[in-house]
Amino acid sequence: MERLPGFRDFYPEPLPQPDMWSADARQYIFSKWRQTARRYGFREYDGPPLEPLELFTTKSGEEIVGQLYNFQDKGERDVSLRPEMTPTLARMIAAHERSYKKPVKWFAIPQLFRYERQQKGRLREHFQLNADIIGEKDPAADAELIALLIDTLRSLGLTEKDFTVRLSSRNAWHDFFVRHHGNTAKEHEFYQIIDKLEREAQEQSAEKLGRIGFSLEDVSAFIEKSEPTPELKAILDNLNSRGLGDYVKIDYHVIRGLAYYTGIVFEAFDLKGEFRAITGGGRYDNLIKLISGDKVDLPALGFGMGDVVLLELLKARKLLPKFEATLDAFCLIEDESLRAESLKLIQDLRSAGLIADYSLTAAKSDKQFKRAQELKATQTVKLERNQAGELVARLKNLKTREELSVNPAEVAKQLCGTH
Amino acid sequence: MERLPGFRDFYPEPLPQPDMWSADARQYIFSKWRQTARRYGFREYDGPPLEPLELFTTKSGEEIVGQLYNFQDKGERDVSLRPEMTPTLARMIAAHERSYKKPVKWFAIPQLFRYERQQKGRLREHFQLNADIIGEKDPAADAELIALLIDTLRSLGLTEKDFTVRLSSRNAWHDFFVRHHGNTAKEHEFYQIIDKLEREAQEQSAEKLGRIGFSLEDVSAFIEKSEPTPELKAILDNLNSRGLGDYVKIDYHVIRGLAYYTGIVFEAFDLKGEFRAITGGGRYDNLIKLISGDKVDLPALGFGMGDVVLLELLKARKLLPKFEATLDAFCLIEDESLRAESLKLIQDLRSAGLIADYSLTAAKSDKQFKRAQELKATQTVKLERNQAGELVARLKNLKTREELSVNPAEVAKQLCGTH
Repeated sequence: MERLPGFRDFYPEPLPQPDMWSADARQYIFSKWRQTARRYGFREYDGPPLEPLELFTTKSGEEIVGQLYNFQDKGERDVSLRPEMTPTLARMIAAHERSYKKPVKWFAIPQLFRYERQQKGRLREHFQLNADIIGEKDPAADAELIALLIDTLRSLGLTEKDFTVRLSSRNAWHDFFVRHHGNTAKEHEFYQIIDKLEREAQEQSAEKLGRIGFSLEDVSAFIEKSEPTPELKAILDNLNSRGLGDYVKIDYHVIRGLAYYTGIVFEAFDLKGEFRAITGGGRYDNLIKLISGDKVDLPALGFGMGDVVLLELLKARKLLPKFEATLDAFCLIEDESLRAESLKLIQDLRSAGLIADYSLTAAKSDKQFKRAQELKATQTVKLERNQAGELVARLKNLKTREELSVNPAEVAKQLCGTH
Repeated sequence: MERLPGFRDFYPEPLPQPDMWSADARQYIFSKWRQTARRYGFREYDGPPLEPLELFTTKSGEEIVGQLYNFQDKGERDVSLRPEMTPTLARMIAAHERSYKKPVKWFAIPQLFRYERQQKGRLREHFQLNADIIGEKDPAADAELIALLIDTLRSLGLTEKDFTVRLSSRNAWHDFFVRHHGNTAKEHEFYQIIDKLEREAQEQSAEKLGRIGFSLEDVSAFIEKSEPTPELKAILDNLNSRGLGDYVKIDYHVIRGLAYYTGIVFEAFDLKGEFRAITGGGRYDNLIKLISGDKVDLPALGFGMGDVVLLELLKARKLLPKFEATLDAFCLIEDESLRAESLKLIQDLRSAGLIADYSLTAAKSDKQFKRAQELKATQTVKLERNQAGELVARLKNLKTREELSVNPAEVAKQLCGTH
């Protein structure tokens, strides 16, 4: 029986085939995400992977349904696997915002699902770090969020030579739109043309812009000038103060396709241009009001960083550590009459927090030793009886080849000092 | 907009209401699960939360469909959210078993889903620690798995005064069944009657047993005698060697309702009898063969430990730590002209691995100090200029009230020593 197309199995390393997905690499990325978010004072939350369909159509319109894993449950509710986290966050905040001091800084690591019929071979699920700041309209919040984004990527070993954050502003584009007498009904269409500018042929963009009364020349001139708005200037100054200025540049190409962004928007890319965007986000000051049915009105901003492009990039830059079995001690049981005492020793080691393993059943000593090596054990430990009939533990460090005999009761202490 | 009935939102602590679910408690339990499994040399894996429906009906029969979140996806595939992890594990093992040395010791922390129409107010999802050993038929594997189960609960502060593992054997019951000339076609029905023995009225059980040719007296006598089979004896001896004997007792009441168990079975209960089973599992030596369509045949055993009963138990025994915001340092910015320098300092602290926060925008100093206290900051740090115009960092330990002035470049080092 096969798994569903577009879904992933995560296996422990070493992987049987290099193109498989590693549970160890996934956990490594999750740990770095979690640690960095915590250092910034972000708190973890989570919601259900299954939500009422309406939560997503309220935010994104009925057209999103074509991309969803939606169905009717046995209670005849229209439900959907979550394609993104923001609507759930907005729902959760709207329900309990009074209990949390603003600004709220929260993160989550949800698995997200999209059914896209046409995209053969592409994944239909991924994991995402979602970090959001709610209740602060000052650009200081935008800078704090972007600093977290940068430090999250830095925690994985990426530097200013590997990636850059392209920073832009819906407000700047809105001003441009008004200055050029755009028709408000066409504003979202205009943003979507800008969003595709770098991926479409010039003539096509020019033609589309012309149809709603804009010229590609004006648009290109505005992008090339790249003058930061006061808001963007404040964010740049803030990031410069932190020593993170080299990671950011103003680039008005970025506008983000989604309708709900209201202020600054940004995307991070690898500098070699080999991959899709690593992460993106921006301000969505109206969304909580929309989701809460006008009950709660709070400014907000956030980003989502997926695990798939990130993992490709880390692999390409050789920044993933080796994920092997790592064992503090492998207990060799060569004398079966000492199995009970060996089990007690193993229990001691594990109780002391050490990672310890052994052969569950009787096995030849060379086979046991080979297994210890395969599992990358730091030490082997073996019980023996000395001539006086007393138990002695013989330790061997598999890297230094150093050997040592100690009292069995002292092994855990001895290994805790060296592992 | 409300979340779906039976699903949970996980909020950061302190929780607005005591009956809400805590993201911090969840993460605490997951960490302990992960740490303990690793100490035992178990490796992490995961599969998709959505699988082909057939994977679950192959294992459990068509009748399980009534309890599933199943639907047809947009590619007209019959799919289901996973109600349990074992079929996915069996599928993954069957696909790549040759690449992994036996015995395989794997764990996962999946979210599982069951749609049960009648059970109003009950959860329709939960998380589970799943730990399995594959490829070893010796009872030494059963003992290793049960030791992990016990140590997982011990890592959360539970002791032999809080819980016990009731150990039983399908083989022992099978022998009983054969000895009493049971009709093979009724064997599963017989197991299901035994499974309900403690929850049903005696007359009802006696009547049901009578219908398939057994007497309640024989059954009760067998349970009361509780003689361990050689297999159970080996497991008890093994656990005794580890010093874990006090956590286990033979109890033939336990048989596990599911059809696929083949050897030893077990359940852990709180000793006050206040809660449902904390965890349960057993041997399923035929399942991998079944799921793989006879391609792979490996003995296996495992357990599942859910987060819901466990959390209730830990709460009742007051074993959950306090989950508050914990901050190593809160940076007070009382002089806005020093905001840039303060941001640099905050960046230094976070880069050193410290959890640091501050007021994103200008705020009165007493309001900032109050925020530092709310966030349970260990220290406050504040930049000032001395009379020579040089920057000085003033540290204050909020517990000891100790104060200290240091060079701003030294703050991170200073706090790393004390946090």
